[in-house]
Amino acid sequence: MEVCTIGGFEQVGKNMTAVKIKDDVIIFDAGIYLPAIIEIQEEEAHEHIYNEKSLRRIGALPDDLVLDKYGWTSKVKAIVIGHAHLDHLGALPYLAHRYPQAEIIATPFTMAVLDEILEGEKIILKNRKRIIKEDSTYVLNGSSGQIKMEFVHTTHSTLQCVFIAMHTSEGTFFYALDFKFDNYPVIGDPPRYNKLRELGRRGIKILVLDALYSGAERRTPSERIARNLVEDAMSSVRDRKAAMIVTTFSSHISRLKSIVDFGKKTGRQIIFIGRSLNKYVTAAVKVGQCPFKKEIIMMKYRKQVDAFLKKVEKDRGRYLLVCTGHQAEPGSILDRIVKDETPLKLREGDNIIFCSSVIPDPVNINARDRMDKRLRKKGVRIQTDVHVSGHGAREDMRDLVILLKPKHIIPAHGTLQQETPLIELAGEMGYKFGETSHLSSNGKVLKFD
Amino acid sequence: MEVCTIGGFEQVGKNMTAVKIKDDVIIFDAGIYLPAIIEIQEEEAHEHIYNEKSLRRIGALPDDLVLDKYGWTSKVKAIVIGHAHLDHLGALPYLAHRYPQAEIIATPFTMAVLDEILEGEKIILKNRKRIIKEDSTYVLNGSSGQIKMEFVHTTHSTLQCVFIAMHTSEGTFFYALDFKFDNYPVIGDPPRYNKLRELGRRGIKILVLDALYSGAERRTPSERIARNLVEDAMSSVRDRKAAMIVTTFSSHISRLKSIVDFGKKTGRQIIFIGRSLNKYVTAAVKVGQCPFKKEIIMMKYRKQVDAFLKKVEKDRGRYLLVCTGHQAEPGSILDRIVKDETPLKLREGDNIIFCSSVIPDPVNINARDRMDKRLRKKGVRIQTDVHVSGHGAREDMRDLVILLKPKHIIPAHGTLQQETPLIELAGEMGYKFGETSHLSSNGKVLKFD
Amino acid sequence: MEVCTIGGFEQVGKNMTAVKIKDDVIIFDAGIYLPAIIEIQEEEAHEHIYNEKSLRRIGALPDDLVLDKYGWTSKVKAIVIGHAHLDHLGALPYLAHRYPQAEIIATPFTMAVLDEILEGEKIILKNRKRIIKEDSTYVLNGSSGQIKMEFVHTTHSTLQCVFIAMHTSEGTFFYALDFKFDNYPVIGDPPRYNKLRELGRRGIKILVLDALYSGAERRTPSERIARNLVEDAMSSVRDRKAAMIVTTFSSHISRLKSIVDFGKKTGRQIIFIGRSLNKYVTAAVKVGQCPFKKEIIMMKYRKQVDAFLKKVEKDRGRYLLVCTGHQAEPGSILDRIVKDETPLKLREGDNIIFCSSVIPDPVNINARDRMDKRLRKKGVRIQTDVHVSGHGAREDMRDLVILLKPKHIIPAHGTLQQETPLIELAGEMGYKFGETSHLSSNGKVLKFD
Amino acid sequence: MEVCTIGGFEQVGKNMTAVKIKDDVIIFDAGIYLPAIIEIQEEEAHEHIYNEKSLRRIGALPDDLVLDKYGWTSKVKAIVIGHAHLDHLGALPYLAHRYPQAEIIATPFTMAVLDEILEGEKIILKNRKRIIKEDSTYVLNGSSGQIKMEFVHTTHSTLQCVFIAMHTSEGTFFYALDFKFDNYPVIGDPPRYNKLRELGRRGIKILVLDALYSGAERRTPSERIARNLVEDAMSSVRDRKAAMIVTTFSSHISRLKSIVDFGKKTGRQIIFIGRSLNKYVTAAVKVGQCPFKKEIIMMKYRKQVDAFLKKVEKDRGRYLLVCTGHQAEPGSILDRIVKDETPLKLREGDNIIFCSSVIPDPVNINARDRMDKRLRKKGVRIQTDVHVSGHGAREDMRDLVILLKPKHIIPAHGTLQQETPLIELAGEMGYKFGETSHLSSNGKVLKFD
Repeated sequence: MEVCTIGGFEQVGKNMTAVKIKDDVIIFDAGIYLPAIIEIQEEEAHEHIYNEKSLRRIGALPDDLVLDKYGWTSKVKAIVIGHAHLDHLGALPYLAHRYPQAEIIATPFTMAVLDEILEGEKIILKNRKRIIKEDSTYVLNGSSGQIKMEFVHTTHSTLQCVFIAMHTSEGTFFYALDFKFDNYPVIGDPPRYNKLRELGRRGIKILVLDALYSGAERRTPSERIARNLVEDAMSSVRDRKAAMIVTTFSSHISRLKSIVDFGKKTGRQIIFIGRSLNKYVTAAVKVGQCPFKKEIIMMKYRKQVDAFLKKVEKDRGRYLLVCTGHQAEPGSILDRIVKDETPLKLREGDNIIFCSSVIPDPVNINARDRMDKRLRKKGVRIQTDVHVSGHGAREDMRDLVILLKPKHIIPAHGTLQQETPLIELAGEMGYKFGETSHLSSNGKVLKFD
Repeated sequence: MEVCTIGGFEQVGKNMTAVKIKDDVIIFDAGIYLPAIIEIQEEEAHEHIYNEKSLRRIGALPDDLVLDKYGWTSKVKAIVIGHAHLDHLGALPYLAHRYPQAEIIATPFTMAVLDEILEGEKIILKNRKRIIKEDSTYVLNGSSGQIKMEFVHTTHSTLQCVFIAMHTSEGTFFYALDFKFDNYPVIGDPPRYNKLRELGRRGIKILVLDALYSGAERRTPSERIARNLVEDAMSSVRDRKAAMIVTTFSSHISRLKSIVDFGKKTGRQIIFIGRSLNKYVTAAVKVGQCPFKKEIIMMKYRKQVDAFLKKVEKDRGRYLLVCTGHQAEPGSILDRIVKDETPLKLREGDNIIFCSSVIPDPVNINARDRMDKRLRKKGVRIQTDVHVSGHGAREDMRDLVILLKPKHIIPAHGTLQQETPLIELAGEMGYKFGETSHLSSNGKVLKFD
Repeated sequence: MEVCTIGGFEQVGKNMTAVKIKDDVIIFDAGIYLPAIIEIQEEEAHEHIYNEKSLRRIGALPDDLVLDKYGWTSKVKAIVIGHAHLDHLGALPYLAHRYPQAEIIATPFTMAVLDEILEGEKIILKNRKRIIKEDSTYVLNGSSGQIKMEFVHTTHSTLQCVFIAMHTSEGTFFYALDFKFDNYPVIGDPPRYNKLRELGRRGIKILVLDALYSGAERRTPSERIARNLVEDAMSSVRDRKAAMIVTTFSSHISRLKSIVDFGKKTGRQIIFIGRSLNKYVTAAVKVGQCPFKKEIIMMKYRKQVDAFLKKVEKDRGRYLLVCTGHQAEPGSILDRIVKDETPLKLREGDNIIFCSSVIPDPVNINARDRMDKRLRKKGVRIQTDVHVSGHGAREDMRDLVILLKPKHIIPAHGTLQQETPLIELAGEMGYKFGETSHLSSNGKVLKFD
Repeated sequence: MEVCTIGGFEQVGKNMTAVKIKDDVIIFDAGIYLPAIIEIQEEEAHEHIYNEKSLRRIGALPDDLVLDKYGWTSKVKAIVIGHAHLDHLGALPYLAHRYPQAEIIATPFTMAVLDEILEGEKIILKNRKRIIKEDSTYVLNGSSGQIKMEFVHTTHSTLQCVFIAMHTSEGTFFYALDFKFDNYPVIGDPPRYNKLRELGRRGIKILVLDALYSGAERRTPSERIARNLVEDAMSSVRDRKAAMIVTTFSSHISRLKSIVDFGKKTGRQIIFIGRSLNKYVTAAVKVGQCPFKKEIIMMKYRKQVDAFLKKVEKDRGRYLLVCTGHQAEPGSILDRIVKDETPLKLREGDNIIFCSSVIPDPVNINARDRMDKRLRKKGVRIQTDVHVSGHGAREDMRDLVILLKPKHIIPAHGTLQQETPLIELAGEMGYKFGETSHLSSNGKVLKFD
């Protein structure tokens, strides 16, 4: 078995891994690297056109051209997407055409999000698409024999995330990006501990593992905790005449559910603003996983939004606005509101709840610092960090390794600095760096007997 | 009105404030400074005798001798204790004799804890004791006219904590140590927002405020969050044959309730170990506030404990041990267990849950670092920071100030460095440092017209 | 004696203090608050006009209108400027007209810089100017009797900085902004320890003290250290065909001397670029304190600069460029060069030496982070933090207090958070907060018997 | 060529690397892991016996038994020691007997220190010893042909440190532990840049590199800077009747030279106290590299020391004491003095200068925090961090890589977390992780064609 760690092994983003068993290659994820796009937007004022060429040039795509070099390209039989986040899915529209024989395999929600993106970008893919359910199995007839994939439900921060256990004639490969062990998820079930233990008993050869927070010596708390924080933050807004805005991640359907549930108790009308929210909510509705669809109104286009914000300005206590822009991204709806670029002018007593944390990068820190200062100056009441991450930490990883007992561990989803603590954790558990635990780099091939 | 900030204005501990209205002096709190005692214990090997003289010498008592200098001592009419923590209550046994005319006023639980301490230390106080309920009022006939005290229920990290609003002929003094605004407490009610708003409307002259975490730009989460973390941590112990130890604060009855509630689900027998736990639980039982008293067995004496641990060693899956020692204090029961100084020898797969955070002091950091390393080496599964603080942060303080609209603010419960962020917050809200917001020092008198 | 702490007691910048002895008022410093100006520049794209009114509106001037309220304005006899930095001098052009009777008193260099600024801004002041030398004395005949001012040479990060000891009928006031104790300055003498000790023996009533780094438990190293670092950094540029740029503070004549001294050894022609550098160097030349004036060429205007950079582009090994822009300020010459907005296009092997530290503010951190990334991408070799601060730290302050033994201490030059460590240091040394050590706020009056 | 990274690749300490060329094995360094010894001392009160067996058990020796497993042991032809620090030299007395055919090769000072240690521990080694000078060459006739070793003088923090370039039939291996590029060393010459560039031109196959501070984006300043800091610190002790103690690293002969040079100016008699200082100074004298030997008096034994300190107590202004104990190690002479366990009782105005930094480990941080508090309480004037590290940082490494242009880079001297920034730096410079830059673990073999 050979593993090519194509992308996401030297940064957070553009995740992509290929596994070769004899003459069959299976790709896991094809994500985009958003910071590269944001950088180019900030550097250059003009409009950008995104296509494979321009995205490759700025480093926003995983460099899957290495597969050509290795002669793997024509052998790709399937591209499996673990969940619907852009750093796992967002490169697919630009790369899939290179693998015309490959099926695209994903859960219903993930596929629905892909379809939304393709429609938005006006890209048509010719690959066959195969929708698989969580906790189901799919058998692919490779030239090397049967390849059986088990899609094991797990918990993260969007809908229908799966671990993938791929059983082959050369052993079982286990792909575990992204996850945290959440025993009290807001939508859906807890992780399948028994299934994982059983797989561990049957034997795992290689585990590729989301190591992002392996340096944090804790378990990541449940989304239930975030739900409680949301309730507390929203119920503490007591002024019924003040504006009320909540900002969070557009793909985080559970979080949105909590916001809507407690939003209803305020008696305000709930408005979702922006294209990104629209995309994910539409996908959730399509697959019957949007419990709050009747409770909200969606607004997508800038004109519509600005006209509506005029109404909000006059009757601000009547609405609850939900939008993105929590990182103070320039041009986001929240950024425009805070800078008084829309008809809604925030004032003393108005409320903003940030269901997010500041991503610790100088750009975001600076942008949010300035946004928060502006809001304080206006007397806006802000609540921040009403949030719990969807990525597990060191103790989640320890538990997964205990359950699966893999022969080999390969940390993923981070820089080397973020991945090495998992190597150290593995060391505590008896793995030996360079023999049974491995650090890889983008484009490298690791071979296992 | 004059305010003498006797103790706790230059450190965390030995809280004590006196207020003079004409010829009447009322004292708020009389706490001890534990770090001074710990330091002396670590420096000198021999046994220590604690009495007023020795405790004064090492700086463990608030320096209330300044009241003699000011001629206030004989005018003290009452000593009011806000809640049952030692940094608010622990100096009283050694100081109360200096104020023979003063009543000691406290809620039932606080008074019961005082009685437990007095009994343990074999100290008899001659002062009259007056037990007042939360949300009740007490009128004291001073030489300056009636002094009406309202005891307003608040939320913190032990039972029956109160804010005290003291209405006098010279205006209303408000004492707000310690608190966080917890809308979902595990035992008891949320804070009395309406009462606070009403008091604010009637006018507050001076607010003395727990500023400990005024530098943290957030609200402190509810104890409900800690309860969820406890549930998650305890339910993740799946090995029914392994030892299971939970360590937390002995005065934190809500936390102990959560531990017992979820402990019962493990089917294990729940044992509380140690004198400190015994003291607080006994006090809670006395006042009818210990919902879990029938679910637990208490062990107090070292001999008894060690004999029992022999049984645990043989049948470790049968018990859930609850104890103190979360800061790895030398000689604590947890410290002794971890160092193999008891019959219970921890081994791979055993569990320790720390319902606490490491107090950020080099001594504790080092002690816990070594304890954790020892545990990791043995293969013990540890879960840390299963905890939420009982002290509010900047946004809790902002809310309290908005409700009370006091004329003057005096930060308390910290070093100057910990108190100054509250001055800055007050500045944001229109207070002017040196005019309406004030930093004080131990022993200083502030005068207000 | 009364002290009005007008500005610089709640931020770093706009330093201004007034002292009243009976009917005479003396003002110390009149500085500007640069961050307020920078903020307005970043927020609004259009050109800005700076006059008293607009600067007051954005909070860039110390609020000396409080002196009107107190009835002090007409009593101001003198405005003494301690040194030539803008946060001590920069507001004077806009405020001095309010005090027509007041003499402006400063050392030759400080006065020369003031003249340069006035000329640049086309402002004419009618106040009498009195140039005093370091280590000299000036007697002012006030209505309250003689006021004798001693100007004691001290060390900081520009030329001719002085402590001011003002002897009055009500005692001696000592103004100590800004300083570090530098025993090995590159230009000029070490501090006057004996003089300070003597003044201490004769008795100091009040010490107003630069507390900026009172939280750092060290002495600040000498400028000699910075000189060594400069030598090392510059001599490590071995490629004689690569571009070489050094950026530092324009007022830091000692640092510039070091840069020129070691620059000469490279054989390159040394060019100073920009108006700010020109201003300070011209002032230094005027007072005969610019030892390197013959070694450099100055370029002031953008056109001239860009034409010259065209030559540098072709013959980059021939020149050593010295400029400002070390904080990556937008529009600075360095910023323009790095962004390829000038004819000089940096490339692999070119060198930039930052004789400065990043000012720890999100705006600067972000700006420099992006500048550094750009440079790394081009392969430019950068050396950073070739710098030592001019502000003393905790141990410098300890030494000054030991020498002067003042009765009262008032920390200045920072936020409350930055000033409180000096209160704690004073506490270690026997001062009592609220009695002999004092925290003040902008506009407050402290009275001393 | 095969490289076995025996020790020091997962921690700071026990450095050891073996290189195999056909049937010849050369070992570089054989260091001890001091933290393991300190831990055992702190855990267990009784006296410890150190021999190979006990040291192996606690993990204090590099695990060179792997060489037996690989069949390399009998092929070891030489053990080369790069410099005289214990983490490079300290295991040799316990391991050398395993390689009876191997010569021990080192510079005169390094060999002299080894001899001192052997004598102190009463160990006799039968291996042949070969003393080589800096900047000389030694040819070893291996079974694989000639192996030519060049010993290139470099700068670090003790005497006679060398890089080793080993030219073999399979290419050149370069061993670069430890170093910083110091252009102004206090004793000896700057690094041999030209030699390094020439070696780079001739071709380096593998570079094993001290990566300890690869995460710090700077060059480490010169020892000249430390010398200036020492001068400043020592000259600021003005009280000629107070005690004066300087503490630093016993192997740091340049630093000791600075201390003695400026100590002489105080007119005090200079006394070196302790066995460790004695060991290194004796070795320096032996090789004619102790320029200050006539200026000092050495005291070695506790009785002698205590008797002498009695004299110091009575006439404290007469002496300058130099000792170790800067990390507040329990039982060190400094620790004993501070705790009043010697006849010298420190008091107000006495001086301690720490020519060292606190090693950032919870044990040291806590120990020094307590020592410093004790000293402050006594009124002792302390000066800390009068120090510059001997390990290079990221920019030193960048420069070395530019000079040598090795084909492969292997970071050493740290944990994986400390080594990965060098991998990232190498990435910036075009190296590819897993192909031309490599992370290894203790005991692993890397093979190079």
